Amino acid sequence: MSKEIVLALDAMGGDMAPAMVIRGANIARVRYPEVRFLLCGNEQLIEPALKRFRKLRAICSIRHTENVIGDNEKPSVALRQRHDSSMRLAIDAVGTGEASGIVSAGNTGALMALGKFVLKTLPGINRPAMGSIFPTRRSECVMLDLGANINCDATTLVQFALMGEVFARNVLGIRKPTVGLLNIGAEELKGNETIRTAAAMLRHAELPIEFHGFIEGDDIPAGTVDVVATDGFAGNVALKMAEGTARLYSEYLKSAFRRSVLSRVAYLLARPALRMLRERVDPRAYNGAMFLGVNGVVVKSHGGTDHKGFANAIGVAMDMVSQGINPKIIDELSRLKLEDFPEPRRAVS
Amino acid sequence: MSKEIVLALDAMGGDMAPAMVIRGANIARVRYPEVRFLLCGNEQLIEPALKRFRKLRAICSIRHTENVIGDNEKPSVALRQRHDSSMRLAIDAVGTGEASGIVSAGNTGALMALGKFVLKTLPGINRPAMGSIFPTRRSECVMLDLGANINCDATTLVQFALMGEVFARNVLGIRKPTVGLLNIGAEELKGNETIRTAAAMLRHAELPIEFHGFIEGDDIPAGTVDVVATDGFAGNVALKMAEGTARLYSEYLKSAFRRSVLSRVAYLLARPALRMLRERVDPRAYNGAMFLGVNGVVVKSHGGTDHKGFANAIGVAMDMVSQGINPKIIDELSRLKLEDFPEPRRAVS
Repeated sequence: MSKEIVLALDAMGGDMAPAMVIRGANIARVRYPEVRFLLCGNEQLIEPALKRFRKLRAICSIRHTENVIGDNEKPSVALRQRHDSSMRLAIDAVGTGEASGIVSAGNTGALMALGKFVLKTLPGINRPAMGSIFPTRRSECVMLDLGANINCDATTLVQFALMGEVFARNVLGIRKPTVGLLNIGAEELKGNETIRTAAAMLRHAELPIEFHGFIEGDDIPAGTVDVVATDGFAGNVALKMAEGTARLYSEYLKSAFRRSVLSRVAYLLARPALRMLRERVDPRAYNGAMFLGVNGVVVKSHGGTDHKGFANAIGVAMDMVSQGINPKIIDELSRLKLEDFPEPRRAVS
Repeated sequence: MSKEIVLALDAMGGDMAPAMVIRGANIARVRYPEVRFLLCGNEQLIEPALKRFRKLRAICSIRHTENVIGDNEKPSVALRQRHDSSMRLAIDAVGTGEASGIVSAGNTGALMALGKFVLKTLPGINRPAMGSIFPTRRSECVMLDLGANINCDATTLVQFALMGEVFARNVLGIRKPTVGLLNIGAEELKGNETIRTAAAMLRHAELPIEFHGFIEGDDIPAGTVDVVATDGFAGNVALKMAEGTARLYSEYLKSAFRRSVLSRVAYLLARPALRMLRERVDPRAYNGAMFLGVNGVVVKSHGGTDHKGFANAIGVAMDMVSQGINPKIIDELSRLKLEDFPEPRRAVS
């Protein structure tokens, strides 16, 4: 049997916590026989919820606290005043080496702030990024940042590209991932100075990555590249717009099938096909955003997800731990010597 | 019969021009009996394409030129060196008052640059914006900017919001449109300084608009607000991501129906329902981005559209002309006295 891997779970984060966290952990338990959980949160709520899951109970330990970081709490407050919140205890467990990673469906900003503060950023990384996997027409891609960094300079965008590339190679198993910079046109002259500078840096001959160049929003679902690097504002807008558009489309589809008697009959026959479709566009399947660039595995689950979504977020953490993604990022970045790699004076050469 | 309205068409803009332009004009001719066209472009190509459309020919005049602005040409080149391009002749016709508006499927940057240079911006407007109508779960909304302005200061964002509001009220016929600022979170503290300042300005008691506050990407298709104001980078990413996601979803749907014999039978029965769905998500139905803030009606059609899409872009121009949208924007902005309306020192009060 493979070596045990301990994950710390913020048992109190998310709209339906702790029940959702515990049921999610129980699904993950079956998928990953090597997993063990450290549940951080209120044991008066956790213990009763665990009762139904005897096998899960056997691989869990509980770290009790009554303190929880609220969804609308400022990261600075979470940082200074909440030394014993469920999220903080879970991150601390990663910091001490007790756990190999943490999954939380709580406050995103607080998770990023605590992650950076307790675990620190990886050597050579200016700012950690939030990344996630997206379905594409070809297969899937990874996009970062998704909202942790609103304003990014060129070096930061280059680091996002490099971290994404290491992730795509090691976790998605793509041999030679292509990397694109999100822009509003594919031509070299498009975009602002920062993004053009980042592109010039990525075109740099010594970088061992396959830089595709600029891509536009529709290239993301088209699967034009395997890695999409962008600042957190555009990345977050893209992520949410995709979710909203898929929801709109689903609603149109439903109303089309309600239109006539014939279409209702067609619906009955089409049910298996539509179920397959629903599974394919199920946002829970892509739940779990990873913080890349933090010295530890930190995964953020959607706050509104259910146990199935949370189980997938646990899966993202397990993949990152078992692929040793952080040592690989450190290793590859140190070989690049990014610090000797100045930003060019002019954006486009 | 209503008064004639002359539109200048850039007959050479777009991948399938001039045939696509002429066939589109022919569809619009039936929809708008009052329309007349000034076709700008190469008459050796236009005349033969017009032959099949006798009734259309009767309401068209042609302004000949052999000069065309290429898709990859820089706006500055279009501005300085191309005084007799088909696009320039069409815009000039609006400048002289010969035409009430122009529709082009050509180079977007050139169209914006020429539009600003020849027609000038409306009084009180810093920068014109590119806007378009989007389908939502509730009905539709207007979003601007979609890529003409990458970096926007707070005042510019406020002007986008106000122009969009006037458009929604007068062209979409919404009595009291709600306005949202695109951000990466709904809370007041989210986003950068610029966007928070813009929000503070829009909350200003004297502004006669219904300011909803910040919205996120998924609020756009959800129809949370009637007007979405954003900078051109995020707006363009949102627009393209929506297009790409809808395409991905359609492809998933097709492959689901190809899955089994049963699903193929279901497909046959579901065809009318799916046709309805296809029409609803047809990007051609939403073709035609208007330039708001330019002193003249300028509509950009997607370069890759066909005649049906181009006919819809002509419809956008007709709506803007017949609603007198520009005089209304001027009137409402002058009453606001935006110039006496300083940006607050602190973003969030």
